[in-house]
Amino acid sequence: MKFPQKPVKSLIADHDARCIYIVDQTLLPFVIEQRAISTWQEAAEAIRAMRVRGAPLIGVTAAYGIALAMTADATDESLVTAKRDLLATRPTAVNLAWALDRICGLLNRTEPAERPDAAWREAELIATEDAAANHRIGEHGLALLREVHHRTGRAVNVLTHCNAGRMACTDWGTATAPIYLAKRQGLPVHVWVEETRPRNQGLITQWELADAGVDHTFIVDNAGGHLMQHGKVDMVIVGVDRVSRRGDVANKIGTYLKALAARDNGIPFYAAAPLSSIDMSIEDGLPEIEIEERDAHEVTTIRGVDRSGGISEVRLLERATRVSNPGFDVTPSRLVTGLITERGVFAPHDLLRCMAGEAKQ
Amino acid sequence: MKFPQKPVKSLIADHDARCIYIVDQTLLPFVIEQRAISTWQEAAEAIRAMRVRGAPLIGVTAAYGIALAMTADATDESLVTAKRDLLATRPTAVNLAWALDRICGLLNRTEPAERPDAAWREAELIATEDAAANHRIGEHGLALLREVHHRTGRAVNVLTHCNAGRMACTDWGTATAPIYLAKRQGLPVHVWVEETRPRNQGLITQWELADAGVDHTFIVDNAGGHLMQHGKVDMVIVGVDRVSRRGDVANKIGTYLKALAARDNGIPFYAAAPLSSIDMSIEDGLPEIEIEERDAHEVTTIRGVDRSGGISEVRLLERATRVSNPGFDVTPSRLVTGLITERGVFAPHDLLRCMAGEAKQ
Repeated sequence: MKFPQKPVKSLIADHDARCIYIVDQTLLPFVIEQRAISTWQEAAEAIRAMRVRGAPLIGVTAAYGIALAMTADATDESLVTAKRDLLATRPTAVNLAWALDRICGLLNRTEPAERPDAAWREAELIATEDAAANHRIGEHGLALLREVHHRTGRAVNVLTHCNAGRMACTDWGTATAPIYLAKRQGLPVHVWVEETRPRNQGLITQWELADAGVDHTFIVDNAGGHLMQHGKVDMVIVGVDRVSRRGDVANKIGTYLKALAARDNGIPFYAAAPLSSIDMSIEDGLPEIEIEERDAHEVTTIRGVDRSGGISEVRLLERATRVSNPGFDVTPSRLVTGLITERGVFAPHDLLRCMAGEAKQ
Repeated sequence: MKFPQKPVKSLIADHDARCIYIVDQTLLPFVIEQRAISTWQEAAEAIRAMRVRGAPLIGVTAAYGIALAMTADATDESLVTAKRDLLATRPTAVNLAWALDRICGLLNRTEPAERPDAAWREAELIATEDAAANHRIGEHGLALLREVHHRTGRAVNVLTHCNAGRMACTDWGTATAPIYLAKRQGLPVHVWVEETRPRNQGLITQWELADAGVDHTFIVDNAGGHLMQHGKVDMVIVGVDRVSRRGDVANKIGTYLKALAARDNGIPFYAAAPLSSIDMSIEDGLPEIEIEERDAHEVTTIRGVDRSGGISEVRLLERATRVSNPGFDVTPSRLVTGLITERGVFAPHDLLRCMAGEAKQ
């Protein structure tokens, strides 16, 4: 059995052909299958089915969804319908609403005849800005890694949960950007990659890091606390689906448990995210951020490579078994050491100041 | 696809035939396969390969292993060899050493000709006492559940990790004993059953509870903290592999994370165990309790029921991927509300008093 070796870009836009190509992430890392998306309905389906996933990539895909909708029908009605249905695909990641508000705000001020071109340009801008923001997140995060390396003189041990990597974004990733930059600059780094049940996005992170030649070790989600107790983790860096005004962080289910363990062991816990992940309309993340309850099938079955080298799904539980499958949890700001953003690293209580600075720009 | 419906006893001894029957727990809950064990080497293999598992059951199986050794060869040399090799099968559960010390201590004072009969009697006594201790653990734990029900007037929500149930013991289980007694006495109880990667012992707990008609919901290990944040858990009850003098609890990997979440949300965290799980030779569990590092294969593959209804293993990761697989972690006593033992519920700082009382008996 051999896994595909070469990760490709998470999303490629063909402006001339008016379509985009995504990697079907439900098949990763076992199969790399690119899929052409040429209608906004297909874009919505891809987000809903998690063929594209990761808060930044969801936002970019939704923006291209609007561009596809405008290509087919540039009327106000088409814009309203496409925005509404794209917004309803996933509830937790705020980047989805942010990207849709941005592109639809522009199109509302644009004549219908101009909308297709304007929409494709704006979607591309959102994608390009995402990659640039992640690169800057990488630089700010790299300074944190460098400080640990200077202090300890050995490889920096980063623990991450889920995939906040290249495949969750347009490029670089959020949590992984500092790691990729460290690798490029020769700063020794080792990553503890958590499996991230139920959907095993840790497999995607593992595959990305292996491709980039980054030293890493794969663990089950249960093991992270034990490693922290034994001094094997220097910092935790995770991605983000939504951040409240006061810095509560919604991220993949299980993140909160690692933040607790980090605090208990005096280890810094960072969430890496572009400022577009901050939802200024929400103060207290715990009651206010909607947590998606996903299908039981994700828990009761697992996909992998079978003996013949094909992809097979095995069932762990009888269909009748009752399952609860929350997709995210909220880490209270008191457990968050800092947010690594494209504008620098901010303690949660400095977030508002940072956002004010952003508004001025 | 249909899972087997009827759990059987975890271990049955046939004194006349001088053999024991175990359920091969590596196949649970997909297949119930009883396996005859007629040599001490087979008993050691069954413990090492986790065909039998759970601290109390490991102790009982090791005691029967000594009985099998004495049946074949009742010399001092045979006793020393069998004890040494059985002790080396698993490092973390203290019941293994406790049961071996007890039975071998008796046999050292017994003439070789009398040893086979004495060993079978003593192994049976250890098994019977385990079931009786667990029933008493159930009674003491039931009082805790009853108190919650009286206060809230609704079903008591218990979260458990791994399998500290009937299949981990001779009968009743440790963590599950209060739950089974609640069910019998009509006290409404609902159990959150954690999957417990990498070996998915939560599947065994789910199967046990379904068989007993206990209301339950299956979740991934990542979800427990989120449920506690949202008031959906009244108490955590887990089993134990070893407890230090001051009450640090070694248990299945991931337990520590749930203890942290319980503390963060003001939820009591109980560890249920017979007093034989307390290792008086150890004060600080974190550095002193040896944590078993298990095979990477447990993390890189998963077994389940395939499309044709057979049992298949699928591979999640390439063989070359580096994996760390610690089997247990240590929950510091400061996070433990109480130990539910056969002599009552004790706060960690009262453990020594309890053990002193035990010594007097």
